[in-house]
Amino acid sequence: MASVAVIGAGGFAGALCAAIAERHPRLELDVVTARTDAGRLLSDLYPRYRVERKLETYDADRVAEACDAAFVAYPHGAAAPTVEELRTRGLRVVDLSADFRVPQELYERWYGPHPAPGLLGGAVYGLTEMNREAIRGADLVAAPGCYPTAALLALLPLKELAADAYVDAKSGVSGAGREATETTHFVSVAENLKPYKVEGHRHQAELDAYFGPATFVPHLLPIDQGLMASCYVRPNRDIDADEVRALYEDAYRDDPFVEVVDAPPGVRDVRDTNLCRIHATSVNGTVMAFAAIDNLWKGAAGQAVQDLNLMLGYDETDGLL
Amino acid sequence: MASVAVIGAGGFAGALCAAIAERHPRLELDVVTARTDAGRLLSDLYPRYRVERKLETYDADRVAEACDAAFVAYPHGAAAPTVEELRTRGLRVVDLSADFRVPQELYERWYGPHPAPGLLGGAVYGLTEMNREAIRGADLVAAPGCYPTAALLALLPLKELAADAYVDAKSGVSGAGREATETTHFVSVAENLKPYKVEGHRHQAELDAYFGPATFVPHLLPIDQGLMASCYVRPNRDIDADEVRALYEDAYRDDPFVEVVDAPPGVRDVRDTNLCRIHATSVNGTVMAFAAIDNLWKGAAGQAVQDLNLMLGYDETDGLL
Amino acid sequence: MASVAVIGAGGFAGALCAAIAERHPRLELDVVTARTDAGRLLSDLYPRYRVERKLETYDADRVAEACDAAFVAYPHGAAAPTVEELRTRGLRVVDLSADFRVPQELYERWYGPHPAPGLLGGAVYGLTEMNREAIRGADLVAAPGCYPTAALLALLPLKELAADAYVDAKSGVSGAGREATETTHFVSVAENLKPYKVEGHRHQAELDAYFGPATFVPHLLPIDQGLMASCYVRPNRDIDADEVRALYEDAYRDDPFVEVVDAPPGVRDVRDTNLCRIHATSVNGTVMAFAAIDNLWKGAAGQAVQDLNLMLGYDETDGLL
Amino acid sequence: MASVAVIGAGGFAGALCAAIAERHPRLELDVVTARTDAGRLLSDLYPRYRVERKLETYDADRVAEACDAAFVAYPHGAAAPTVEELRTRGLRVVDLSADFRVPQELYERWYGPHPAPGLLGGAVYGLTEMNREAIRGADLVAAPGCYPTAALLALLPLKELAADAYVDAKSGVSGAGREATETTHFVSVAENLKPYKVEGHRHQAELDAYFGPATFVPHLLPIDQGLMASCYVRPNRDIDADEVRALYEDAYRDDPFVEVVDAPPGVRDVRDTNLCRIHATSVNGTVMAFAAIDNLWKGAAGQAVQDLNLMLGYDETDGLL
Repeated sequence: MASVAVIGAGGFAGALCAAIAERHPRLELDVVTARTDAGRLLSDLYPRYRVERKLETYDADRVAEACDAAFVAYPHGAAAPTVEELRTRGLRVVDLSADFRVPQELYERWYGPHPAPGLLGGAVYGLTEMNREAIRGADLVAAPGCYPTAALLALLPLKELAADAYVDAKSGVSGAGREATETTHFVSVAENLKPYKVEGHRHQAELDAYFGPATFVPHLLPIDQGLMASCYVRPNRDIDADEVRALYEDAYRDDPFVEVVDAPPGVRDVRDTNLCRIHATSVNGTVMAFAAIDNLWKGAAGQAVQDLNLMLGYDETDGLL
Repeated sequence: MASVAVIGAGGFAGALCAAIAERHPRLELDVVTARTDAGRLLSDLYPRYRVERKLETYDADRVAEACDAAFVAYPHGAAAPTVEELRTRGLRVVDLSADFRVPQELYERWYGPHPAPGLLGGAVYGLTEMNREAIRGADLVAAPGCYPTAALLALLPLKELAADAYVDAKSGVSGAGREATETTHFVSVAENLKPYKVEGHRHQAELDAYFGPATFVPHLLPIDQGLMASCYVRPNRDIDADEVRALYEDAYRDDPFVEVVDAPPGVRDVRDTNLCRIHATSVNGTVMAFAAIDNLWKGAAGQAVQDLNLMLGYDETDGLL
Repeated sequence: MASVAVIGAGGFAGALCAAIAERHPRLELDVVTARTDAGRLLSDLYPRYRVERKLETYDADRVAEACDAAFVAYPHGAAAPTVEELRTRGLRVVDLSADFRVPQELYERWYGPHPAPGLLGGAVYGLTEMNREAIRGADLVAAPGCYPTAALLALLPLKELAADAYVDAKSGVSGAGREATETTHFVSVAENLKPYKVEGHRHQAELDAYFGPATFVPHLLPIDQGLMASCYVRPNRDIDADEVRALYEDAYRDDPFVEVVDAPPGVRDVRDTNLCRIHATSVNGTVMAFAAIDNLWKGAAGQAVQDLNLMLGYDETDGLL
Repeated sequence: MASVAVIGAGGFAGALCAAIAERHPRLELDVVTARTDAGRLLSDLYPRYRVERKLETYDADRVAEACDAAFVAYPHGAAAPTVEELRTRGLRVVDLSADFRVPQELYERWYGPHPAPGLLGGAVYGLTEMNREAIRGADLVAAPGCYPTAALLALLPLKELAADAYVDAKSGVSGAGREATETTHFVSVAENLKPYKVEGHRHQAELDAYFGPATFVPHLLPIDQGLMASCYVRPNRDIDADEVRALYEDAYRDDPFVEVVDAPPGVRDVRDTNLCRIHATSVNGTVMAFAAIDNLWKGAAGQAVQDLNLMLGYDETDGLL
């Protein structure tokens, strides 16, 4: 058993970390913190998660005293100093922000000056299927962004094959976070579908770092949870559908949360699960891969728990099935 | 032809007033104003309405110079002083706020001190089907609230018959306005249905004023536009389904926007129309009436135009079919 | 441990029975059957439930050999003969159809001739909060309908107090079952809300049997899962909000799946849970109670498992938290 | 004035043709036919269109006697013989099926043997922005498919520039037609997004015929109306965002229904309009164009009316603004 904290449990991803930890057979959820919602019960904010714990104001010493590990679910920039405080006090940390996902140069191109560059070297990118061994030994893991999780799982098996890659990604609104804005207003989203940040979305950095050049365009979907990465790749050699399929089955043979399937998945297939469902094929010379995840599970909180399971030497699937 | 202004055209109801006026055969839309969005094109805010007019900062003299009549689509409290300025300058006004809908005493019980009590006496409640003649002669008409529009159309034929009345009303999110709040966040609304303000909603005042005592509870629906009032009445004498049906057909025989139908309507039946569809019957001693409207049309902007048509001596349906 | 079958696992409720049983600490799911989908994997029909079992053609002997208990999730009329076969072979049965929910006379008024009247006497109505002790000793339990589950939980504490009762109920589309019809077509439901069967819905029978006369009108909601019963009661004596609240807290003090709350619940609060959230109050002489459930969980499969837990002497919450 | 018929007015596209014709200043709607719904009022099937006409059984002579022109909204294969009957009788026809959209060889590759090859030579492809002059002189026009309408409007300005083209298209459910199937069941669609027919969708034929090779993948969106084509093109020479933008502005300068805009459109921007909104740019060497339409308007019925307007010598926008 390990004792854990969730820092920033008022947001969508943090709240789900808490919900998963609360039911996890080998984690004990001891501290949940929030900024604006401190003092409220987490179960008042998210009734269906049924976590009847009071949100506290964050205090590094209190967290360090009570816990062995922490999930930090703060916005980028705000996360790094908190991660630093907790690492200094010896806690294992899974950070859900962008602060430790990519090398400093890439980070600064997309996000501005890095708030804690000294920690970057020791951080491991937490895409389990890519970095499982490194995660096992890590004290600080950066859980990937939701878009890169789906896009990388769809694209990595093609890394050596891709002459060009196009990622048309679609995400439910929970990916935009809990803040009420014109963008997240029900009337803006309902009966709509819209591309956004076509000139460049920050999650591009993770694709650049771990796959290579790719055209990436996100779209906002009129649903709550769910994310699809539809990937189109011009291959640098002929490859037929059977070979594509075999490539994916080999790549993910031992990954408990990736399902390679015979037909295109829907995001509904994986709702409220930590699964990534992928269909890959080749049609008229274009290689296609479609990866569906739940953006809050495999795209955020579920993957963060998967990471911590590995860091603590637990079974990767504990608490996630 | 009359020249009109829409004051507060940035909000949902005001914008639709402008859209209807723009295509109206006998109105000329000359001024649209907004507070936070002044300087922007209305067509940038609401592309599908295709009204390519620049939103101006409100100026009473400018409006009075350019226009014969105005729709005021401000929140209650803010509306009354503006209405007063425009009335003083001689414009006919349809006010979409609550400021002139009910007598002063009722107003002050629900909304606080009235900002312009001197105008209340001359204001006519703009439920066309109830007040057609009075509206024809009026210079100031208060367009009814969305909930009372549906509830009153469903209940008024039963006024003499009702021992008790219960109104379970359901509205789409556009009824909550354009402000981004936790309540209007897509993730709060999607896959949800929720009663609210069960202890008392301000629209109760209009039911009290024009129907009498009734239990009224609103619910928020996960749709954009549309409102249903499901009304249950314990009658003070026996009345069968045929008699109920005849009562409604008589009541609405000459009303171009009320359809009395043989089966329960859906709110989708009237989407983007100024219609109110009503089904009324009697089952095991309970009289039931279900009224469906589009909350932005018959529940706000459409009805406001219907009012102005009458005030200007036009056909009631001009611009609305 | 008990070994269980789900008969009719291709439908929404049956599939969820299977999913809950598959993860239940004291049940072993051994047989899943389906009519039109026999031969397919349940996980192909419902990927997110992740139950990788092949649907078999129903065979009473095969089920009896493999299992101690069965969930029967057939339509009314078709269920009773199957239940009879399994009871004859000694299995404990939870039936999810209407066939054993109400006394014969009431059944025949709403559903037609009863297919197995001999079993009716021994069947227990499975609303746990009402019938817990009787369920513990039963061999055949009839899981309540989704509407009556919410309506009865909202109304039963008022049984002695109600002079009149009105139930305005709203259900998500999964309540209409898996059959593709004009009613369940996405385009019929989206951006809609519609009352239906206002002249009489079969679930009225359960209200009549266990509460008494009530006006009950169902509405179809544009959501997948979730059901709200908004109940309005004219009391036969004065009762204030505090007393109403106390009545509900007393009634449900020991019920693990009923939450009495201070504000109106949303159906989203209980999505994918076996909870019923109730808010009850009194406003201007009308008593109101709002009960939210997930129609597939507490309204069907979750409650069926809750029933079987009791029948088998397990903790009522096993597999349901 | 011209007198028109809608053959197949029970389906989504046919019904909208009737609704537009009914309000059109220069068309008189004289006959609406349907197969399974003959005898019903169109306003019972589609209340919000408010077309109170009785659906008749199709009779070529009756149509020819009453009408100058007809919209045929039958499925492919069934449309051609009907078109032939009406053309033989001298009516101008806009066919909404696939039967006359592409040359015979392409047709037969995707759809099977052509039912009326003799008419193919005289048919004009009704993408107004591409074929305006030919449409003006035509007696038989084939209204384009919904996907090709958006994709071609997005891609045609790049025809000479494209080395490779990828079209990731997303459509609302009304595009799947009125038939109730597992695919169109609300529970299948809600909270979902799914690619389909990735191995080849019949609308590919129109892209092949009028643009050239392109990878095209459709997705089903959880909305009623609306379609987005997100197009990614690898250009055969360097081209920057300004030049791309200029290309589109030139291409569509005189097209009343195409709006070239500065930011990505949402499908909601064009809901219930005949507009196509396009944003085109170049990012890191990839040219992108996003085209949003309402699949039932510009993607079907609206465009069909636009075609007929031209065929009859009317203003292209009559009845469509």
